[in-house]
Order: sequence, then C-alpha cells, then structure tokens
Amino acid sequence: MDSGLRRNDEQENVVMMGHLATSPSHAIDLLITARWIVPIQPDRVVLEDHAVAIDAGEIIGVLPRGEAEPQYTPRERVDLPAHALIPGLVNAHTHNPMTLLRGLADDLPLMAWLQEHIWPVEAKVIGPAFVRDGVELAIAEMLRGGTTCCNENYFFPDVQAATYRAHGFRARVGLPIIEFPSAWARDRDTYFERALAVQDECRGDALVGTTFAPHAPYTVSDASFERIRMLSDQLDLPVHLHLMETAHEVEESKHEHGLRPMQRLQKLGLVNDRLIAVHMTQVSDSEIATCAEAGVSVVHCPESNLKLASGFCPAEKLRRGGVNLAVGTDGCASNNDLDMFGELRTAALLAKGVAGDPAAFDDMYALRAATLGGARAMQLDAKIGSIEPGKRADLAAVRLDEVETQPLYNVISHLAYAVSRRQVSDVWIDGKRKLEHAALVDFDLAGVLDKARRWRERIAAL
Amino acid sequence: MDSGLRRNDEQENVVMMGHLATSPSHAIDLLITARWIVPIQPDRVVLEDHAVAIDAGEIIGVLPRGEAEPQYTPRERVDLPAHALIPGLVNAHTHNPMTLLRGLADDLPLMAWLQEHIWPVEAKVIGPAFVRDGVELAIAEMLRGGTTCCNENYFFPDVQAATYRAHGFRARVGLPIIEFPSAWARDRDTYFERALAVQDECRGDALVGTTFAPHAPYTVSDASFERIRMLSDQLDLPVHLHLMETAHEVEESKHEHGLRPMQRLQKLGLVNDRLIAVHMTQVSDSEIATCAEAGVSVVHCPESNLKLASGFCPAEKLRRGGVNLAVGTDGCASNNDLDMFGELRTAALLAKGVAGDPAAFDDMYALRAATLGGARAMQLDAKIGSIEPGKRADLAAVRLDEVETQPLYNVISHLAYAVSRRQVSDVWIDGKRKLEHAALVDFDLAGVLDKARRWRERIAAL
Repeated sequence: MDSGLRRNDEQENVVMMGHLATSPSHAIDLLITARWIVPIQPDRVVLEDHAVAIDAGEIIGVLPRGEAEPQYTPRERVDLPAHALIPGLVNAHTHNPMTLLRGLADDLPLMAWLQEHIWPVEAKVIGPAFVRDGVELAIAEMLRGGTTCCNENYFFPDVQAATYRAHGFRARVGLPIIEFPSAWARDRDTYFERALAVQDECRGDALVGTTFAPHAPYTVSDASFERIRMLSDQLDLPVHLHLMETAHEVEESKHEHGLRPMQRLQKLGLVNDRLIAVHMTQVSDSEIATCAEAGVSVVHCPESNLKLASGFCPAEKLRRGGVNLAVGTDGCASNNDLDMFGELRTAALLAKGVAGDPAAFDDMYALRAATLGGARAMQLDAKIGSIEPGKRADLAAVRLDEVETQPLYNVISHLAYAVSRRQVSDVWIDGKRKLEHAALVDFDLAGVLDKARRWRERIAAL
Repeated sequence: MDSGLRRNDEQENVVMMGHLATSPSHAIDLLITARWIVPIQPDRVVLEDHAVAIDAGEIIGVLPRGEAEPQYTPRERVDLPAHALIPGLVNAHTHNPMTLLRGLADDLPLMAWLQEHIWPVEAKVIGPAFVRDGVELAIAEMLRGGTTCCNENYFFPDVQAATYRAHGFRARVGLPIIEFPSAWARDRDTYFERALAVQDECRGDALVGTTFAPHAPYTVSDASFERIRMLSDQLDLPVHLHLMETAHEVEESKHEHGLRPMQRLQKLGLVNDRLIAVHMTQVSDSEIATCAEAGVSVVHCPESNLKLASGFCPAEKLRRGGVNLAVGTDGCASNNDLDMFGELRTAALLAKGVAGDPAAFDDMYALRAATLGGARAMQLDAKIGSIEPGKRADLAAVRLDEVETQPLYNVISHLAYAVSRRQVSDVWIDGKRKLEHAALVDFDLAGVLDKARRWRERIAAL
C-alpha cells in the first residue's frame, strides 16, 4: 500500500502546527524512518517508507520519508530499513512482581497451586524489595518484547509506581482493595487510606497513573465496592477487576448474593466505561450487550485462561458485540511470560477455534486489541495506542527481514502470526529510547538478573 | 536433581563399549558438557553438570562431567554452561515447501482460503524449484528453532529428499497419493510408480526416509488405500495421513461410505502401528481406545486446528488413553511458522483448556510428545527422540540465562512454558553441528533468503 492511504487529518495536523508553512526545516528531537509503519489508527493501514517526527516526546508528524527529510532537522535520526514500526504494545493485565515466581509451580489444580505454592511463598516474601525487584525484571522483559505500557495489579503500588517512574516505563498501578489483611494493609480502612495516598502521589505524573484494583467480586464486599464506586467517580479512575474468571465464581456469587457477579456490580453502580473487566470467560450474550452499551473494557488473557483451565472467553462475540477488547498476559506465575506478541497470537488463534470460524478475530484486530484496545481500557487512548500526531511517542520497531518472517506478503499478518518478540529491535517510551538494537538502554541488566537469582535461592530454600 | 538419577543401563552401555575398562582416555569426536541435560528418557529427569560423549554421530555416553573428563579425549569439546541440552525437536507434520506461502492469505473460511488463494497459487508455482527453495527456507527456520527432524508431506518428494540430504537434515518425506492429477503425477498408477521410485532411491539412507502419504480419506479411494496397505506392510513404511481434521469430513464420509473415516480405514486394514494420523479433532472415545490398542500415533497440530477452526483435538484424552502423541506445526501457510517450542506450548495450554483441568498434559509430556513422541510416530524412536547411549546425536542446546527464563526454578517448566525458540544456541544432527552460537553452519542463508524474496515477487504478481 502506498502513501495514498495516509489520512488527510494527519496532513492537516502537520499544517496546523505550522511546520510546512513557516519552517522549511524545523528542528525536532527525533526523526524515525521505517520501511513500514502500522499506525493502528486508521485501521488496516500499512504506510511504506514513511517517517515519524517526534519532538518533546510527542508525535508531531507521520508522513512520507521524502516529505519529512526536507521538512525536519532532527537532533537524532533513526533509520529502520527492514522494520515495521508499531505503537508500543499495551499489556492490560499483569502482576509483575510475580515475575520472580516464574515457573515455581505448574500443572496443578487451581487451589493446590494457590494454597500450597503461590500463597505460602508470597506470605514469606512480599514487601517493597520483592515488588521492586520483580517489577524491574518485568520491565526488562517487557521492553525486550516491545511492550511499553502495563496495567499493574499487585500489592505495594507505591513501590511499583516508584520503580516504573525510575525506569521511564508507562504504567497504571492498581490500588489493591481486598477484605484480607496483607503485608500492604491490615484492614479495609488502611487499604483505602494507602490507596488514596498513592493516588495522590501519582497525580500529574506523566508516565505513572493509578486504577482502583478491587481483587475480585468474591474477595471484596459490597461496602468496599460502594466506596470504590464513589471514589472512582470523583477521581475519574478506572476500576481494574478480575471478573467471572471461572464458572465456580459465578455459581458462588449466585449462591451468596442471588446474583451473577456482573449483576451484582451493576447493582453497585460499577458497570460503566471506567470498568476494566479481566478474564470474563463466563460472560453471557446479554452481559456482552450490557458491556458494549456501558462502555466496559474487557481484558482477554487467553494463555492464563488456558493454563489454569478457567474457561474460554468468547472473544469473537465480544468483538462482534462492539465491546472494547484489550489483551493481557496475566502474571508470570500463571503464563509464564510477559510476551505480548505471543499473547495476541494466542488470542487470535483461540478466538477462531472457540467461534468455530477461521475468519474470526483477524490479524489486524489482534494487533489493535494489544495496542489501542489496551490504551482505551486504561483511559490512555488520547495519549497512546496508535501512531498519530498529538500522541506520545511510545513505539516499537520489529525486524521483518529474518528467516522466520520471510517471505513477506502482508506486514499485518506477520506481526500477528509469525513475529517472535525477539525480533523487536528498538523501543521508545514518551520519545525516549529504551531499547536500541535489542539492547536495553540505561538499564543495569546484570544487576537485575543477579537480584532475580538471589530471590530464586531464597524462595527455592523455603 | 543430581546424577543419582542417571539410569544404570547408561553406565552399563558405557562399560559394554569397553571404554572404562580398556581406555582411561578414549578418543572420541565430540564431548558436550551442559549445565542441564533433559534426556526425555527416563521421564522427568534433569541431569545437572553432565556430559554427552559422541563418536561417529552416535551417543556413546551420558555421564557426570567429572567422570567424562578423564575418560574421553574429544577432538572437539563444547561447553554449555547456562544451557539445557535436549534431543532435537521432531516436527511430526509439515508441508515445508509451503513456507514460501507464509502469510499469503489468512483469516478466511477454509474453502475460500484453499480455492481462492492457496490452490491457484500452487497450480502456478509447484515444481522442483519451488519445492527445493521452500524446503531450504524451512530448514533454516527449523534449525534456528531447535528442530532436527521433520515428517514432510508435499509433492516432489524426490526433490525434498535431495534437499534434506544435501543439508544433512533428518526427515521422512511423504510419498503423495491423491486421486487428482498434479504437477507431480497425472494418475493413480503414476503416483504409485513415482512413490516407489523415491522409496527405492532413499533405501539405506542414514538421514532421509519415506512414508506413504495418502492425502486424506476424502481424496483417496479404497483402491488406492488397499494398494498402500499392501505396500506399507511389505516395505514396513509408515502411512502419514490427514485424518478426521473437521466434523465436515466425518459427516461426508458417513454419507458417502456409511462409515466414519476411521471405521473405513479399519475396514481397509490401515489402522495399525504404522499409521500416523494427523489432526484427529473428531476422534471419539472408542476410537481413542482403538488407536491405543492398535498402536496408532496421533500428530497434534494445535495452532493449525485453531487457525482453521477445525475443532479441538482431545489431546489429554489421547494421552490418558495411552495413545502415542506427536506434535506438528502443519505448513506455514496455515500456522504461520515452524516453531516447535511455540507449538508444544500451545499443545500443553490448549489441552488444559479443552480438558477443563489445569493438571492435564503437563510440561514434561509436552516436551516428550515434541521429541520422542514424534520419533516413535515416524518409527525412528530406536534412533532419535531421547539422549541415550546408542542413539544418534540429534541435539539442541537452549540458553536459559536470558531475562525471559529468569529466575529458574524448574528446567522442564521453562522449556515448555517460557523458552523462546530464539534461545536455541546450538544444534547437532547425526553428530554434526548445524547451528553454532545461533548461526547456521555451512548454510548460504543470504542465498536462501534471496530466493525467498524472488518467489515472493513472482507470487505477489500472480
């Protein structure tokens, strides 16, 4: 496809900024030229031999290389002659401190896995150091795989926020609410108090924001949900919640509350466009319609759902129903990676199998869910999720000239079905380079790996 | 786990060969020491700091490093200090020439995909050059991903055989039988005639063998199946067949023959331990029992089944039923890769989802299916599929010290659930190094990629 597919409003944006009219060669921070750019918005477009102009962390132009070169004098220029440039991937559901528990226990019934392995270990290790070291390891893995933003859900959001901030990584950290005491908070009031302190501390931060993260309907009371509803409305904060992950959860809710979990949340006023509902393997057709109407975002974690045998999320029905769909890896203790390319591929493949339709959930939709879908779920779609003027420069470059992606007929197909995350060569967040020729920038990788090994020694000895 | 897990008969093998008794330092071709060795046989064993002694392409010892060093004087020595050494992966169902069609058409209903995209292109390009160039590209991809053996299924098996042989890659090439004329053969007699000529030409070849490859029950007549049955018995050749891939196939067979496809094959005498049944999404419980009793091998291709929405193969039921299970990627036109690590992971994840049991189809079983299971299906399990004295040295080394596989609690878990094929560093086939520090050995990669690009130009212009 040629540059004719570029939208007119991009052109207008550039003109509006006055670059064409007033400055034949405008000084900017960074010009990236790429063999292919997949902006995600507009849909299904592949721009050939285009450039992205970036200044002060913002995308100010997306235009043919031949037009960009006379127009801009970049302080830095990066050429990607065999690469596709895409928006950084958005991992819409993670528990990144648990990266330190990767592969600790597998292939077990859910309760045995939690009660005999994960929880006993967590009880002994959770604290600021565990959270910081796990998040740092996760950042290394995410950057190497083209992920630039995550929706985090764990204890010690203060430590998470500080760690993401220190590494210039974009995140929303969940403010945990659960009716059990933990190392983070001893009772309901303390959970809320600490939540609000972290929310306050993150206000105005360019990279790190918050969500309310009530654990799940079966671990959070109506009283807490009501308080979350009120605070979420007042502060305009998303609510990030595990919802209808298993059939058992639905049965239990019907037994205890006389309502399906989603009905209960509706009664409590939480089913709205701030709700980020994770898993949703049990969502019914009428609930899909409700989600679409209310603007609920659903985060699909297909590999976690498979590995824990939680059920099959009807991803194609959600797509057809017009629900905003995002993709998440879930935590490394149940996946066992933070590979968003792998996850979006599994999402696309599994949706076809579940729908019984090989035309379901196509390559472009999978890429969109893993970028703009996640951004929208996190209320960040005005800022990130596509390559458009006015958005922040969160970008990933993927080499397509390797054996595994040759021959190349269709860039979008390869990004969805053939690319390995190891083909990611360069990553920028907010215009800053975080990965350069597959090497982390300003990152003490040896130190982070050393800390991971030390946690391994300690945990294996428990 | 320590060296105590080493089996006694390995020790006996070494002693039998007289090395311990007569030669305190025996000259051998190659000694590989590795941080971990997963021999596959015995089951679930991880040998730490062990060595594999190789001479004339054969594994002659698997023993603790400390014992190996005084015992052998290797002409070459390879140390793998942060790696797991495993048997090379066995891709039990491929159409490798179709690697040249990777990503040509996706996300389409099956018949539109075949009739409007794949078949018209194949009709224009199939021939010796297409087959050779596609197989070469596939060999590059397979080696880089730790695959050392494949069960090939396409036209021009003579060209395939020559290409695999030229590259020192282990394969069985299918001798295609189908009731349609093709560029390979114009009628039934010619298919059989050419099949037997290729079979004759491969006899005694150390690396390349054959199978009969009747396409599928719905494209092969009873008369051809009867002839295959007779020849397969006489020549002791496996029969490699797409079987019960879709519900439609089963219905059609019942309509046309009054029998399910498997019943028809039973009647024709083909349900025996030479049958390699590929896909089997529709296999019933009683047919599983029949397969187990008859010694049929099933090749599970989970990603192809998902992408084409063919149905869910009951992989866990097959495992529990005692059926030998292998793993295959299927062709790149419907997958879109030859990534056996990805495929065995999808197999393990999907089986749990389909069985509704997170303890189903565990990490070790997935690894075993992708190595020894494939070898057994191909009647090569006396030669390959595990790291044991007496077997040929088909080996793959996987780096486990990278971010994505840290921390490391359990080697088998990481090999199944966390490793990327890009962590494969070294590969040997029949004792010969084919991949060294992730670079192909004696392989004109630039030339192969150039040919792939030229096919792309030609096919895209059709």
